[in-house]
Parts: sequence; structure tokens; C-alpha cells
Amino acid sequence: MKTITAITFTDGKLKLIDQRRLPIEFVIFECMNFKDVEFAIRDMVVRGAPAIGAVAAYGVYFASDEFKSLKKENYIKHMKEACKFINNSRPTAVNLMWAVDKMERLIIKNIELNTIDITKLLKGEADKILFDDIKTNKKMAEIGNEIVLKGATILTHCNTGALATGGYGTALGVIREAHYTGKDIFVYADETRPRLQGAKLTAWELKQENIPFQLIADSAAATLIRDGKIDLILVGADRIAKNGDTANKIGTFMLSVVAKEYKVPFYVVAPVSTIDFKTSSGEDIVIEERSSEEITHIQGVRIAPEEIEVYNPAFDVTPAQNITGIITDKGIIQGNFIDGISKLNNIR
Amino acid sequence: MKTITAITFTDGKLKLIDQRRLPIEFVIFECMNFKDVEFAIRDMVVRGAPAIGAVAAYGVYFASDEFKSLKKENYIKHMKEACKFINNSRPTAVNLMWAVDKMERLIIKNIELNTIDITKLLKGEADKILFDDIKTNKKMAEIGNEIVLKGATILTHCNTGALATGGYGTALGVIREAHYTGKDIFVYADETRPRLQGAKLTAWELKQENIPFQLIADSAAATLIRDGKIDLILVGADRIAKNGDTANKIGTFMLSVVAKEYKVPFYVVAPVSTIDFKTSSGEDIVIEERSSEEITHIQGVRIAPEEIEVYNPAFDVTPAQNITGIITDKGIIQGNFIDGISKLNNIR
Repeated sequence: MKTITAITFTDGKLKLIDQRRLPIEFVIFECMNFKDVEFAIRDMVVRGAPAIGAVAAYGVYFASDEFKSLKKENYIKHMKEACKFINNSRPTAVNLMWAVDKMERLIIKNIELNTIDITKLLKGEADKILFDDIKTNKKMAEIGNEIVLKGATILTHCNTGALATGGYGTALGVIREAHYTGKDIFVYADETRPRLQGAKLTAWELKQENIPFQLIADSAAATLIRDGKIDLILVGADRIAKNGDTANKIGTFMLSVVAKEYKVPFYVVAPVSTIDFKTSSGEDIVIEERSSEEITHIQGVRIAPEEIEVYNPAFDVTPAQNITGIITDKGIIQGNFIDGISKLNNIR
Repeated sequence: MKTITAITFTDGKLKLIDQRRLPIEFVIFECMNFKDVEFAIRDMVVRGAPAIGAVAAYGVYFASDEFKSLKKENYIKHMKEACKFINNSRPTAVNLMWAVDKMERLIIKNIELNTIDITKLLKGEADKILFDDIKTNKKMAEIGNEIVLKGATILTHCNTGALATGGYGTALGVIREAHYTGKDIFVYADETRPRLQGAKLTAWELKQENIPFQLIADSAAATLIRDGKIDLILVGADRIAKNGDTANKIGTFMLSVVAKEYKVPFYVVAPVSTIDFKTSSGEDIVIEERSSEEITHIQGVRIAPEEIEVYNPAFDVTPAQNITGIITDKGIIQGNFIDGISKLNNIR
């Protein structure tokens, strides 16, 4: 089994697989300080909500390491500014805020210690966020693998793999697990317009690990579903509401409608941390609109007329009734999502 | 009203707007012989079923002009080969076969004439096919416009405009007509992966004529449909079977499933010549698979890993039960498609 490690911390450097360059070039982007980390998130060297969270945590550690020789008062002031700076690198990633907040709370809790010791604690916490995410994904993959039949053909959307997380992946983690446990699976990967995470990243991960697959245009999935060529659909999630409504990469909702019509199992794979227990339903989820250039240009090459209007939502919401089940690290939620999710909230 | 003329025959040359270069460059591709025509169809200098039909007809004329000095027996032999050669340029569009067949039948009917006179007849027939198509489209647009409500927001897929036909367009012809009769419409245009005819051609046509629109990723359409933001979906057709099943650009079927689920009117706009009275149902329609490069590269720029497998069907089949109506130049077929289409066969 080949392992893709997208995020590593060695020799005082945070090393990231540069996702802006994949699959054309395999380049390691090195972060030496918190400003590098902020840039890496903002410019999408790293993307995928769990991956962003882990990287942001190392950003907070870098800041502490930089400011640890300052007097406590000045240290606190600079750390607050650095955390805010990292937090603002991308507007909507919940894991980003979650991780930075976790790191800040650790500082406050240990404010009586000297800054060198606080810095050590922060390093340990960043490592823990990263390794916990990998552990969570492995656990989720094992749970999800129980529903994968031998010889199954699985359709997936966007990139939910080692590149999007601390490692292993969510939906792609289940696919990995099924592959390595000899389930003899075949994958159809949606290219996932507009940013083509399927073509660029999922195809790259699948090829690296010799998992058999074909890349398709997003709109080619519907006929495959109708014609009985898909046994299972696995997607990730950016946010899950209390009733099971799931925000995920644009195109997910469309797949769910076709899957429901043709009775193909449609599962969301996401850790419990992706459930937003403060959001009642999908209607309350704000959908980020991204720039026109994502539609009018590809790799800097213009494909549409100049000066036209574009509507480019990054995500859509799949209603709970289109979802067969939600595979989490604490088990699979099926049937009554409101009850199932509420129970998870209690065991959290 | 501005008119886009994509196909013109002057000075012995067939001049085509090169659709491979739009919207970046406006270039005219000149065909001087039937091999140029075959190339123009195969390489998609010209695309869109009715446009292909008209261009193919000129291809047959070119062949006749080239072979007219041969003895009748040899002329016939060479013409048969040329017709077959043109016919094989693309597999799915029925108009290609229809136009070539029409030209061949004209030769057979007038086989007693000398080849120079036959060639003149063929030129006249090709002109007629082109001009009849424009006339047909105008007629169809008027008929279709009857179902467009004032202020309607219309979703369309691929390019079905002046570039896809002899002129004016099918689905985009109805949109044009609605716009020019003051219906105050708004259009959402699917970019239409993989070849991006929506982004490149439909956006170009709409912008040329100042018809208000926004360009979207194909997978963004589903949410717009669910949220009641689309009043009407208009698409073209590459081939319609006797039962109303319709082959059209990949992605059409997906739209039809979502439209049906959320009860949004879904109309196919196509001339009677797009109906294949020899094909019973969609199951009998051959779907062209195109090259991997259409998915792995955009404008020559690679976006996916090297040496991966791709599944790239150019079309899909929308079952009749997902279609609200078929707008033809002989009226709108609704309800019982088998009866409605059968009646058209009789008045053809």
C-alpha cells in the first residue's frame, strides 16, 4: 500500500504537496513561518476543509515560535494578530476557524507557562490535530467499507482524499479501504467543474495507488447511474446540518437527484466534526460564490467571451431525503437523520 | 437584429465560421473539396446536427464537381465512395445521413442526365437544404415562442444557435425569437463540458445579440431548477426516435431528470428532419465516444494526470417520459409522442 502524505512537519518546516501544480508537477511547498501558511491556504497550495485546519494549526505554532522571545504581553498581542491573520486566509472553511480557535484556547489555558513551553504545547497540539484527522479517516474508512460490495463500481465527486484531509481521506478513504481489502472495486471520478479537483487531484491519487478508474465529465454520470453501471455513490461534505442536509461541492445535489430516481445508494462520508449542530437545515447554509474566472478561464487560458456574466456557486445543498446514509467515524447514520445526528451530538 | 451567418457558399468555396477558434478568434475556414468538408465535420470546425447536414450536402456537391469529367460508371462509383466517406465523419447526427441520402437520391433520380447537369442540380439542392433549414428554424422559433411566458428565465444546454444550424438556431432560435418579440427573457447557459460549446459558442452568440444571460457550470443547473429559478428548459436534439426518446449533447438527460423531479417544463426543439423514423427508441441510437483528450486537456493545456483512462460519451439519451414537448417546424408534439411523431411522418 502506497501512502500519499500531503502534510508533513520535519526539520522545523511544514511541507505541503503543492496542489496548484498537480497533476502536472509534483512540487513540495515549504512553509517556514505563519505568513507562508496563510499564503498556502489563501492561494490554495492546500485545500480541503480538514487539511486546511491542520495546516492552520501549524501556522499558529510558527507564530508562537517566532514571538516566543517577546515579553508575555507583547507575545499575546502578536499571537492574537497572527491568529486573526491566519483565520482570514479563506472566508468559509469551518475547520480553519475551529483549528485556530483550538490553538488559541490552548494558549489562554496555559498562559501562566513561559512562552517556550507554550510553543512546545502548540506544536504538540498541531501534530495531534493532524494525526487525529488521519486516525478519524481510517476509522471512517473501515466503517464505510462495510457497505461496499465485492466488485462494486463506485462514483465519486470532487477530491476527498489524502490531499483534502490530514491523510487517507473521507469518501476517497472508503474507496482506498475497499481497494486495499481486496474488494476489487472500480471507480468513476467526476472531473468536478469548475476547479477540476476530480481531474487534477482525485485522478492523481487513484493513479498513484493503482486503483482502477475512469475520469468522466460531471454530466456523464447520469447515464451511468441510469444504466445500472454504478453500484454506490460516495461523496464528502463541507457542512452537514442537524437534519442531514449536506453542503458539498457543486454537482453533488445533481447526482443525488439522479441516484434517488434510479435507486442507487448515495452516501455522504464525513467526520462528526463536519456536522454543524448549530445549523437546523440546508436552508441556513450560506453558499459561497466564487470568481467568474473559474468558469471563463482554465489554467489561465480563456475559454469564454470576454466581459460576460457568470454565476459560480462553489457548493450546493443535497437534501437529507436524497441521502441513503451518512458514514461518520462514530458509525453510519441512516433512516431518521435528526435522531441519528442528535445522538452523535450527545456522544461527542 | 444582428444576424450570424455561419455557413456561406461563394466563389466556389464553402466558408464556415471556425467553431474550434471561437470565442477567442473569429476565423473563416474554407472548404474547397469534399475532403475538406469531411475534415470540417470530423474535426468540428462545424458542429450541430442541422449545420452538419447542410455542410455535408455541399460536400456531395464538391465531390460531383470533382468527378463530373469521369465516365458515368466511374462517376457513380466515385460518388458512392465520397458519400460514404462524408457519412462516416460523425456517427450520431441523423441530419448528416439524411442530407447525404437526399443528395444521393437526387443523383439516382437524375442519372440519365449528364454529370455536369447533375452537379448543377446538386448545388441547387445543397443551397436548398441550407436555406430551408434557416426557414425551418424561423418557423420553429415562432411556434416555440408561443410557450415562452413574458419575463421567463430559460435554461439551455450546448449550442443550438446560428452556429449549430443553417442559421437562427433550434432551441437558441426560440430564445432569439422570444428576445426579439420583447418577451424580456433571461438565459442561463450551461458551459457544456467537455467541449464547452455553451461557454464558447452560446455565450458568444448571446453576447453578440445582447440577450441577457449568465454562464454556469453544468452541475450548477440542478440547484437553479430546484429553487424555482428556471421557468423553462430548451434543448436541441441530434436524433429523435419514433417514440420521442431524444439523443442530445451529454448532460441533457441529467437536466431532464432534475426538471421532471421539480416539475419544470423541458422542451426539445428540433426540425422534423431530426426525427429518425427508422429508429424505434433511444436504445437503438449509437452514442459516439470521443477522445480522452477532450477531458484531459482544455485548449491544448493538460489538466489531468498522464496515461489515465477516460470515458467520454458525446451524447446521452433523454427518455420521452422526461420530455414535456417536442417543438418542431410542423407544430409542438405533446402527450402521446408515438402518435404525434407518426403523424409527422405522414405529412413529411
